[in-house]
Amino acid sequence: MARRPPPPAFDIVAALRDKRDGREHSPAVIERLVQALMAGEVRDYQMSAWLMAAWLRGLTETETLALTRAMLHSGDVLRLESVRRPKVDKHSTGGVGDKLSVCLAPLVAAAGAAVPMISGRGLGHTGGTLDKLESITGFDVRLSAQRFEQIVREVGVCLIGQTPRLAPADAKLYALRDVTATVENVPLIVASILSKKLAEGIDALVLDVKCGGGAFMRRPAEARALARALVRVGTEAGKTVSALVTDMDAPIGLTIGNALELREAIEVLAGGGPADTVELTLELGAEMLRVAGVERSRAAARAQLERLRQGGAGLEVLARMVRAQGGDVRQIERPALLPRTRSKVPVLAERAGVVTAIDARALGLLAVRLGAGRRRAEDTVDHAVGLELAVTLGARVARGQPLAWLHQRRRGAEEVDAARAAFRLERRAPAAAPGRVLERLSAR
Amino acid sequence: MARRPPPPAFDIVAALRDKRDGREHSPAVIERLVQALMAGEVRDYQMSAWLMAAWLRGLTETETLALTRAMLHSGDVLRLESVRRPKVDKHSTGGVGDKLSVCLAPLVAAAGAAVPMISGRGLGHTGGTLDKLESITGFDVRLSAQRFEQIVREVGVCLIGQTPRLAPADAKLYALRDVTATVENVPLIVASILSKKLAEGIDALVLDVKCGGGAFMRRPAEARALARALVRVGTEAGKTVSALVTDMDAPIGLTIGNALELREAIEVLAGGGPADTVELTLELGAEMLRVAGVERSRAAARAQLERLRQGGAGLEVLARMVRAQGGDVRQIERPALLPRTRSKVPVLAERAGVVTAIDARALGLLAVRLGAGRRRAEDTVDHAVGLELAVTLGARVARGQPLAWLHQRRRGAEEVDAARAAFRLERRAPAAAPGRVLERLSAR
Repeated sequence: MARRPPPPAFDIVAALRDKRDGREHSPAVIERLVQALMAGEVRDYQMSAWLMAAWLRGLTETETLALTRAMLHSGDVLRLESVRRPKVDKHSTGGVGDKLSVCLAPLVAAAGAAVPMISGRGLGHTGGTLDKLESITGFDVRLSAQRFEQIVREVGVCLIGQTPRLAPADAKLYALRDVTATVENVPLIVASILSKKLAEGIDALVLDVKCGGGAFMRRPAEARALARALVRVGTEAGKTVSALVTDMDAPIGLTIGNALELREAIEVLAGGGPADTVELTLELGAEMLRVAGVERSRAAARAQLERLRQGGAGLEVLARMVRAQGGDVRQIERPALLPRTRSKVPVLAERAGVVTAIDARALGLLAVRLGAGRRRAEDTVDHAVGLELAVTLGARVARGQPLAWLHQRRRGAEEVDAARAAFRLERRAPAAAPGRVLERLSAR
Repeated sequence: MARRPPPPAFDIVAALRDKRDGREHSPAVIERLVQALMAGEVRDYQMSAWLMAAWLRGLTETETLALTRAMLHSGDVLRLESVRRPKVDKHSTGGVGDKLSVCLAPLVAAAGAAVPMISGRGLGHTGGTLDKLESITGFDVRLSAQRFEQIVREVGVCLIGQTPRLAPADAKLYALRDVTATVENVPLIVASILSKKLAEGIDALVLDVKCGGGAFMRRPAEARALARALVRVGTEAGKTVSALVTDMDAPIGLTIGNALELREAIEVLAGGGPADTVELTLELGAEMLRVAGVERSRAAARAQLERLRQGGAGLEVLARMVRAQGGDVRQIERPALLPRTRSKVPVLAERAGVVTAIDARALGLLAVRLGAGRRRAEDTVDHAVGLELAVTLGARVARGQPLAWLHQRRRGAEEVDAARAAFRLERRAPAAAPGRVLERLSAR
């Protein structure tokens, strides 16, 4: 048999010239670019120049799809063939107080879908699902692909961290983007998110695109553009994908910080919890069931999820998942056993008024300062610390009434002042705020 | 005495964001950027992203000046304080058959200016002055700064290579630009050229911006933009600077190749030589004397240079420079002693006609194929090989008459065909071509 000749060396300078001058790459060129990067043929300084050119010149939808596929196929792609249920996941672009994955994954599994969820850690002002779950003693987010598949099959849900074998090109590209001011770009974000999510072996995906002061996308137009691109490219890649654009101006629910948020998620799964957290859980969960094909109508899906929530079925699934992943399940049954600080410090209103805004970004950054998050990826987190809100938007407070409590290790007046400054108090109540769901996008 | 606090770390990501978004850097930011690059604080992959952003967003004149200064001060700056004459240099953006530095430097020195010239090597289809001079046995282009200054003082001219101590930031940046498709950009070219030239310790500079098929700048508008930016930024940097935009469609003179071009330069300095080479020598030389303040009027300068040329004064200076730099001066007195091939192969016209175009780029690339130039910077050159033209533009040739001779080591029919294809023969003569000088730009 004749040997195939080796492929010619990839001409990265020609590719750079094309992107620099605004010409579209063919899918084959993008595939070779990513392969050559991973093989070390294309050097970091060439890839970063390409990233900047792509940032400034843009990538077409065809290019974005090709980039997603090339990044996806840079590593293993899970198949989860032994899992018979429809497989669905949710991805959030990152928010403050966003414990929704912990609420959603077990509840949607209880409703009959399988949820193979590969999650991230907190960075900057946003939290990460893995950090929240690691508040549980022993909970292991580093499982083999085999064990991950087994737990998804047996429990219906498993929640682990990114592994170096799934979409390694994304890790490499993200590290470069992070230090070259090329993070905030729709096509690059789309390829990053989808390449990782498609590697999980899912059939369907719901994207929670956060929008507002506490989100990466601050303006609705940006969030909408990202949501649209995610749905289009994800659909092109052969998955059933939809997106909700949700409000991220004020923190979600009443807690920010790892164990605090886990406790709130447990409350939601036990039938309680703050109204907005419950609302987002039901909305995103219904969408997950719909794209997975488990329920046809959103209304029926919502009703089913609410029944399961009131009956505690989601909480049972969470407990089984925690046990399967080596965690101390007593901490789920008795959340008071989760890590906590000795005391909490009240943040008191200095005057009376109506709460018209709560600055999620400021409180997210404050939580990082308290130790709940990371300034850099290599930082460790303190699971016990964080903030607990005493009021929500529209609440009327008297002078001296608590706005929040700081769960911190040491008393710090500065932190109390910073927390207080995040609450805007006005004389009159604003017009009733719209719900958290700003927009729904799906391929059909 | 109180110690100064160390300067805060340079925020390269913020600088990248600024350039990406089209904001102007302050001179201080550009200075810190280059310092941080040289200190290894800013990494190659960050600098290449900056280069791409600068390529696409542009740099203002203020930024270009700041970049020039920062690159200039990244290494030693010669002062040549012991040289009493006005110090002037010429820089060409690179052409084919461009032996003008070898003609100009001694002739302008003979007219009373000092010419401290730091030159380059050939790369791609363009030749380099150092390679031409190294055709002379023993000629040393790697001298210390002290020896360089001494020869400039005693002979009036010295011609050496770039050293790692002069403008090292340019070497680093150029290496990155070369592999990231960020070479062809006016502000980056300006900073690269001027930072090296200003490090020579000159008072005045003439730029020969080549334009046409054999040049990097193919279109007059591009060449004019580069010339204008060079003059403005060089003037801002405190030097007397002017530029000529000169035609580079057909090769300069009748020779391409190192020893061949050196022989032609010697002919010019001996009062002979092809008309266009003489014309460019007198035009650029007159401009050098004018910006150096040696002569007030261009006409007087031209007349003086022509007198010196006819009298052989420039050739005498060349011989003294060659001797001072360790070269075998007999090869200047008897050019037949320079390296040469055993024989030369004629390139014959296949039909009669008028020569209406000679493709300088094609012939430059052919010379590289013969061994006269470099594909990569690390290649070595064969000083003997090259091309000798038998005809110039407008010449009427008969069928079978030679168009050129190839000075090559081995016979190769392909090379002969390639050479022949570079000559366009038409029935009728074109309108008389304009001279080589297309435009003159100066600060005043």
